[in-house]
Amino acid sequence: MGDACGIGPEIIARLFRDPRSAGCVVLGDVEVMRRAAGFIGGMLAVARVDSPADALRAPPNCVPVLQVEGLPADLLAAAPGHVDARAGAAAAACIARAVELALAGEIAALVTAPLHKEALAAAGVGYPGHTEMLQALCAPGREPPPVRMMLANDELRTVLVTIHLSLRRAIDAVTFDAVLQTIRIAQRSALAWGLRAPRIAVAGLNPHAGEGGLFGDEEARIIGPAVAAAHAEGIDARGPFAPDTVFMRARDAAGHPGEFDIVIAMTHDHGLIPVKYLGVAHGVNVTLGLPFVRTSPDHGTAFDIAGTGRADPSSLFAALRMARQLTAQA
Amino acid sequence: MGDACGIGPEIIARLFRDPRSAGCVVLGDVEVMRRAAGFIGGMLAVARVDSPADALRAPPNCVPVLQVEGLPADLLAAAPGHVDARAGAAAAACIARAVELALAGEIAALVTAPLHKEALAAAGVGYPGHTEMLQALCAPGREPPPVRMMLANDELRTVLVTIHLSLRRAIDAVTFDAVLQTIRIAQRSALAWGLRAPRIAVAGLNPHAGEGGLFGDEEARIIGPAVAAAHAEGIDARGPFAPDTVFMRARDAAGHPGEFDIVIAMTHDHGLIPVKYLGVAHGVNVTLGLPFVRTSPDHGTAFDIAGTGRADPSSLFAALRMARQLTAQA
Repeated sequence: MGDACGIGPEIIARLFRDPRSAGCVVLGDVEVMRRAAGFIGGMLAVARVDSPADALRAPPNCVPVLQVEGLPADLLAAAPGHVDARAGAAAAACIARAVELALAGEIAALVTAPLHKEALAAAGVGYPGHTEMLQALCAPGREPPPVRMMLANDELRTVLVTIHLSLRRAIDAVTFDAVLQTIRIAQRSALAWGLRAPRIAVAGLNPHAGEGGLFGDEEARIIGPAVAAAHAEGIDARGPFAPDTVFMRARDAAGHPGEFDIVIAMTHDHGLIPVKYLGVAHGVNVTLGLPFVRTSPDHGTAFDIAGTGRADPSSLFAALRMARQLTAQA
Repeated sequence: MGDACGIGPEIIARLFRDPRSAGCVVLGDVEVMRRAAGFIGGMLAVARVDSPADALRAPPNCVPVLQVEGLPADLLAAAPGHVDARAGAAAAACIARAVELALAGEIAALVTAPLHKEALAAAGVGYPGHTEMLQALCAPGREPPPVRMMLANDELRTVLVTIHLSLRRAIDAVTFDAVLQTIRIAQRSALAWGLRAPRIAVAGLNPHAGEGGLFGDEEARIIGPAVAAAHAEGIDARGPFAPDTVFMRARDAAGHPGEFDIVIAMTHDHGLIPVKYLGVAHGVNVTLGLPFVRTSPDHGTAFDIAGTGRADPSSLFAALRMARQLTAQA
């Protein structure tokens, strides 16, 4: 359900007015979802279910909610558009329940609605966001599994070696181990989606992938050796390729078959610029490295419009569709 | 005409089998163009003209060539697909003639076919490529005008603060002066194309444009102040914006009106990834800062297929179309 004060509940409600929601269950709070159904107007029932399997029997225009236990009693008092510790605590509890169900095989994939970092912090949740929480919950008492962010749409999938660092620090973080681990995570994920022999392109860091050392040596020192090591493990990894053309080459569109299934990008923006270029609503965030498929829309809680019913659910639709694609093939 | 041994002459010949070539004149060698017409086959005459104005009277399926004086006598002995000093010398002479005609107002714009750096060097030409030669020829005996590379297609124009440097050195080259000068060049160029009040977006360098200083401070220290200085000069410059979404926001397509006319990118690949994403043939290289419009296709001499008649002229067509767009509005 995400943060109860953000647009999560109302975009989820919109989802259930569409037949594409069939088979989905909301992990959250029945009353919050009723309020959200009111925000968007129109005919929409909200029903409490006892298990994800029960949600399969939900009729059209009905939101099946698996009530998460232990949510703050006065959660409904948390007002849309505001940072509220109760909403942060509730969001964290929903995620914990989702992980239990995913690890038990009761749900096929997890689509997460937006969190608010400040609300989590106000609730004393020790993780800055979904990804870190999911990593920790998947490996209680153990080292969290390494994960990578993938951004994907119908044409392109990019997996990022580095994310939220200054560009200067990101360059330092492009190490042999980081690149090789990213390739391995991409390979394992793609096999899990059902791709037989994933074609993985690795983008360079520098213009023209260093132009033979003229414009930087990270390709020769770091990225090339990591690609070779992956290749030696039987992974069909190729590169490093010039960043300015590799995404175009991987683009899979009508009349333009993509040369690669996945592109590994060294920096946040090399990878995100091409995926977002055709519009944010088409870009879906996928966390690779977890023991289940997890996708999320590519936007935040949008407190400025929460509660108005005006939020656009298209990125959530895209996240759901991507989750189906990545599991239906498994 | 570009390098006589590359694909330049034959893609130019292809151009003149199309009515879109109307009004164009080739600055080059009549015999080389005759040979190129042979490579592509079909009916195509090659005619010597005495001035660009004469080319306006060329019939369809005729290549009007303004013979450049002083070309190597045995230029035709330079074989397609090979580095040849004669081809390098001839290409440089064609550029020099083109600049004379452009500065005299006899041609409206210059579209350059590909050069080969090694052939230029073999001929003792002291410039690594078109851009440096054009800068010098436009200001004989004076300081060459500062120029910037723009890559453009029908949807997007990006102007680059840095180009052929390692990413690490590019970060160092993002200075207040470099950013402000880029904005000024973009503004002057856009006014010359006929845009009344160019809307110039400036992309940041770091993820999320630094996220308020969390991921780097170049936005606060350098880019923001340069944008403010440009604004104080009356330029409608805005930013710095997050690199991953600013290109998408500027994209001008059916049903998606662009928010900006030009995006200033700090690095080669931030700017080129989105322009090339929809296909190299659609991306045109434009040199801003010269006293005339100059465009070029976004590929090289392709020695591996030169002389076969198989080279794809679509990027040259795009470069011609872009040159017309940028001058017709002036």
